[in-house]
Amino acid sequence: MKIAIFNENLLGIVQGNIIIDVSNAVEWKPSNPGESFQRLIENFDVLKGRIEDAIATSTSFPLSSVKLHSPVPSTKKIWAAPVNYKNHQIEMNKMFNNAPRTIEDLALFLKSPESLSGPTDPIILPFKDRRTDHEAELGYIVGKKAKNVKAEDAKSYIFGYFALLDISIRGNEERTWRKSFDTFTPIGPWIVTADEIEDPNDLKMTLWVNDEIRQDGSTRHLIYDCYKCFEVACNNMTLNAGDIIATGTPEGVGPIEHGDKVKIEIEQIGGFEVDVCHAVEKIEC
Amino acid sequence: MKIAIFNENLLGIVQGNIIIDVSNAVEWKPSNPGESFQRLIENFDVLKGRIEDAIATSTSFPLSSVKLHSPVPSTKKIWAAPVNYKNHQIEMNKMFNNAPRTIEDLALFLKSPESLSGPTDPIILPFKDRRTDHEAELGYIVGKKAKNVKAEDAKSYIFGYFALLDISIRGNEERTWRKSFDTFTPIGPWIVTADEIEDPNDLKMTLWVNDEIRQDGSTRHLIYDCYKCFEVACNNMTLNAGDIIATGTPEGVGPIEHGDKVKIEIEQIGGFEVDVCHAVEKIEC
Repeated sequence: MKIAIFNENLLGIVQGNIIIDVSNAVEWKPSNPGESFQRLIENFDVLKGRIEDAIATSTSFPLSSVKLHSPVPSTKKIWAAPVNYKNHQIEMNKMFNNAPRTIEDLALFLKSPESLSGPTDPIILPFKDRRTDHEAELGYIVGKKAKNVKAEDAKSYIFGYFALLDISIRGNEERTWRKSFDTFTPIGPWIVTADEIEDPNDLKMTLWVNDEIRQDGSTRHLIYDCYKCFEVACNNMTLNAGDIIATGTPEGVGPIEHGDKVKIEIEQIGGFEVDVCHAVEKIEC
Repeated sequence: MKIAIFNENLLGIVQGNIIIDVSNAVEWKPSNPGESFQRLIENFDVLKGRIEDAIATSTSFPLSSVKLHSPVPSTKKIWAAPVNYKNHQIEMNKMFNNAPRTIEDLALFLKSPESLSGPTDPIILPFKDRRTDHEAELGYIVGKKAKNVKAEDAKSYIFGYFALLDISIRGNEERTWRKSFDTFTPIGPWIVTADEIEDPNDLKMTLWVNDEIRQDGSTRHLIYDCYKCFEVACNNMTLNAGDIIATGTPEGVGPIEHGDKVKIEIEQIGGFEVDVCHAVEKIEC
């Protein structure tokens, strides 16, 4: 099931080129999508059937005619994986002359929940004089509370997957700060529920800037795979339903600038394209 | 006004040695303190008067007879300041042979909102083989939404202050990870509203471990003072009502162990003492 939020914060199910408004089936409140979404994922075992029943009789729209928003309206926590692909680690060391560090050394870092944005929202560059990079990633959302769950048991805790951009200012500040500016975590285009993803650790992922391929990787090269990331994010820490995990980016990261268009596409999930603009010029973006 | 949460998640106002239950005055719901608290701080201009009116006629208890909980029931974001006192920077460089880094280099880092705990909750040490330190800090809670607010305008955005322990595992992992374990941000004993704090940048702060003074500092030595921390935390990032800022720790940090008692006291605010125990032994703690 592909779960989207569209137009005036309606709940939609995407099937091929159409989107079906199933808001009424789950008493979805467009005035408070955050609360409705939390109720949806926490009670999905029950609500899934109601959504499936409603699909045949609900209003549908051509997908191309609607505006998609972040499929997660708000979150309390985004844990993200640093240097989680070997070739990205190599390029980072080469590019910035860093001491070689791995995810085993670094563990995970938090991004601000306010950095979350949607698949049609522009990325706003806060500073004109700071290099700001694209990072294409597979992201997922936690379906239920977890603590000290091991990788081998993590699968059933994952609600669904999406494409994610981990926008990053380069520099020496704390990683968590450089990646937490508003609009620095666009996700979308929808959530693909976990049952529809054959193997999240074997998905091709591509990122373009203005039609030029910049990143062309696969999650099969993850150092900590999706499930190991989960284990680390709940090792003596509580994960809750609605929390997001960003699994890290493959090689090919590079700067984005005002006027660019960044497109991400992940196999079995889909993709989206967003504009890039400077904070001070966003009115023209 | 000293705002506390006590016993079965009731809302209390502390005056001297008594606590007054003002839950009814603001339609406080003990079953959902997070939502009630958010409503309280977002509407405090109106609700403050109702609380003041209710104080004379509401039930009061000796403070010593109640159990205090975290005065912030839940939060979405904790921004924290690294090496924000010169003498702490010197001790860290000496202790760990770190490259000298300052808050100007590092900016801020996020702690997990799930690390929040209260003034009577034990600190749970997740790992027996990792050094885990106390850090005494002045913390505060944001009263209203803010973005790109400068230090000189920050004062009116701060709802209130409290004592905060930024519990920290030492090591090379991301700072945000080492400080985000459950129970790693005890706060309390209550929130002192900002109008009652003469100058948050001139408050004495002391921390004891088992009656031995370990930290004895003052916020007048902050490198980024309370207002500058606010500026950095909302520089092209959104701060919301209910977010927490931890302003950094003075010199004297050191390890804590199973069985220890950690006490913090801040001038004009108050203090609290919590137990320390290992995760595996917490049943005996």
